[in-house]
Amino acid sequence: MKQTIGITMGCPVGIGPEIILKFFASFNQEPGRQAVVLGDADVLRHASASMNIPARIVAWQPGDPIEPGAIPVYALSSLPVQDLQWGKPDADTGRAMAAYIEKAVRLARQGILSAMVTCPITKSALKMAGYDYPGHTEMLARLTGSRQHLMMMAGKRLKVTLVTIHEPISRVPELLTFDAVAACIRLTAEALHTDFGIPEPRIAVAALNPHAGEQGMFGREEEKVISPAITESSGRFYLSGPWPPDTVFHRALSGDFDAVIAMYHDQGLIPFKLVHFSDGVNVTLGLPIVRTSVDHGTAYDIAGQGRADCASLQAAFEMAAEIAYNRKQRESGWKI
Amino acid sequence: MKQTIGITMGCPVGIGPEIILKFFASFNQEPGRQAVVLGDADVLRHASASMNIPARIVAWQPGDPIEPGAIPVYALSSLPVQDLQWGKPDADTGRAMAAYIEKAVRLARQGILSAMVTCPITKSALKMAGYDYPGHTEMLARLTGSRQHLMMMAGKRLKVTLVTIHEPISRVPELLTFDAVAACIRLTAEALHTDFGIPEPRIAVAALNPHAGEQGMFGREEEKVISPAITESSGRFYLSGPWPPDTVFHRALSGDFDAVIAMYHDQGLIPFKLVHFSDGVNVTLGLPIVRTSVDHGTAYDIAGQGRADCASLQAAFEMAAEIAYNRKQRESGWKI
Repeated sequence: MKQTIGITMGCPVGIGPEIILKFFASFNQEPGRQAVVLGDADVLRHASASMNIPARIVAWQPGDPIEPGAIPVYALSSLPVQDLQWGKPDADTGRAMAAYIEKAVRLARQGILSAMVTCPITKSALKMAGYDYPGHTEMLARLTGSRQHLMMMAGKRLKVTLVTIHEPISRVPELLTFDAVAACIRLTAEALHTDFGIPEPRIAVAALNPHAGEQGMFGREEEKVISPAITESSGRFYLSGPWPPDTVFHRALSGDFDAVIAMYHDQGLIPFKLVHFSDGVNVTLGLPIVRTSVDHGTAYDIAGQGRADCASLQAAFEMAAEIAYNRKQRESGWKI
Repeated sequence: MKQTIGITMGCPVGIGPEIILKFFASFNQEPGRQAVVLGDADVLRHASASMNIPARIVAWQPGDPIEPGAIPVYALSSLPVQDLQWGKPDADTGRAMAAYIEKAVRLARQGILSAMVTCPITKSALKMAGYDYPGHTEMLARLTGSRQHLMMMAGKRLKVTLVTIHEPISRVPELLTFDAVAACIRLTAEALHTDFGIPEPRIAVAALNPHAGEQGMFGREEEKVISPAITESSGRFYLSGPWPPDTVFHRALSGDFDAVIAMYHDQGLIPFKLVHFSDGVNVTLGLPIVRTSVDHGTAYDIAGQGRADCASLQAAFEMAAEIAYNRKQRESGWKI
């Protein structure tokens, strides 16, 4: 099987260019497994020179062969590098980073890319460019016309999916509906099976409230929404909950569960980042394409300094390759 | 310095009796540092016999000498052990466990106990007995007439305090006030200094919302409440925040901060229990007495089986002794 995986450069003035250079420094292009960048060749050359990370950047377009040792770049912007400042996004850098994402989605849908791996963007930079998405994931869902999508944070030790993502805490309770929880259960089970090759996944659902509400004393979303969604969900998986949020992640780490369904962003990301701080991967479930992402932000405070770590990008690339492989294997296969 | 530390037995049909027996099995009574139990001698004898944990249980009252190798019990209930069922609390067991707490508070205020260490109770068992406290900590605050109290989860690697505790998530945003956050900052700083002996503590304040609200896009409590409270607080400590909740705990673990102030129960307890699952201690700040507690619950599902771990009780006892010692040392000392 031949894989060509596209890496979007993310915000041009964040750490995206740097982690891409570092990634390719130890990546071997092989005919069966190639990596290409959707980004800006000038920005990468500038980053290479200013941070002293040697790189051979070559132009690439779909259909072109890929040379060993090269960083093949599909150039989708030509930003004026002399005017760019690390950590200072503007409308131009915002438009550029959106263009990388839009093109990668198109090529993935056409089958030219087997998967896309995304470097970080910020919502505020997207906004400067006139895009009004709450986040990267929501943008991809819109571009692919996916109604039900889901963010999974995945690592070797812990996998977490989120029922709500970029929402203020004050809105989380009203956003937790039977349908949202049930859809999350279904997509999580499908992903564990199809994308990660676990025949009968064991899934834990976290409660919303402390002590899982302690019999209604600290909230009733457990009995009103979460428990009914658990009861009504069934398939080739083991499902349990709602569990007290402060112990369910420890149990997952101890091997009791293959994944935990979290009700809100930080409930899932606090434990995930403690366990997988540098090698966590963000996987978007429910899309017709394979998409993984680094699990960190643009890190504007250290952009351009040569201090960024490419471990999460490496992990995201490996996971994208694994998922693309597993999906191909099961294309005519199992559905819950 | 002579210390007598009281351990309350907690719910008589939970794992309290068992972890007390296990604690004393490796505890040496010394004239300078003694441990006594406020509980039920019959229940302890029954637990000792049924779980085969050898113990020499002797009656104790304030003023009595303490023999090496004994478990001195101030008997405050005489529950009918033949009728008790592990894991099944009722009004009688609820009243008994409340009596242990009330007596320990009185003896600690009188200076007869240097500190109290509490074994777990449940709010529902308290309720059966006619008490209407949301939790152990709130009960102690009421008994000692403390208006401002605070729960700290403390371990060797991570210390976390909570601005709100046993509240549904839906109520957390409205409960976060300037005064609540500022009081939490002050009590945390005082405790780190006075109770833990850190001359100039470094304190991180977590945000409420994902990405610390990302400039108001996911909530405004950061700018309206948390940042003003940080700005207005000063003293002999380093204070920073509001930090994105999903990375601040990792930073604290890496040594950047001595404690993290969390906005709600699970924000603090999820990371704390991942790091200190079996040796975490719950410390109540703001009381006129020293109180630590195990950080786990009554574990009714395994009560009476001999499978409970006393590591948290050991850690809670050690920390109570340390805090009582530090407070005595600084009694005429530093205040923020």
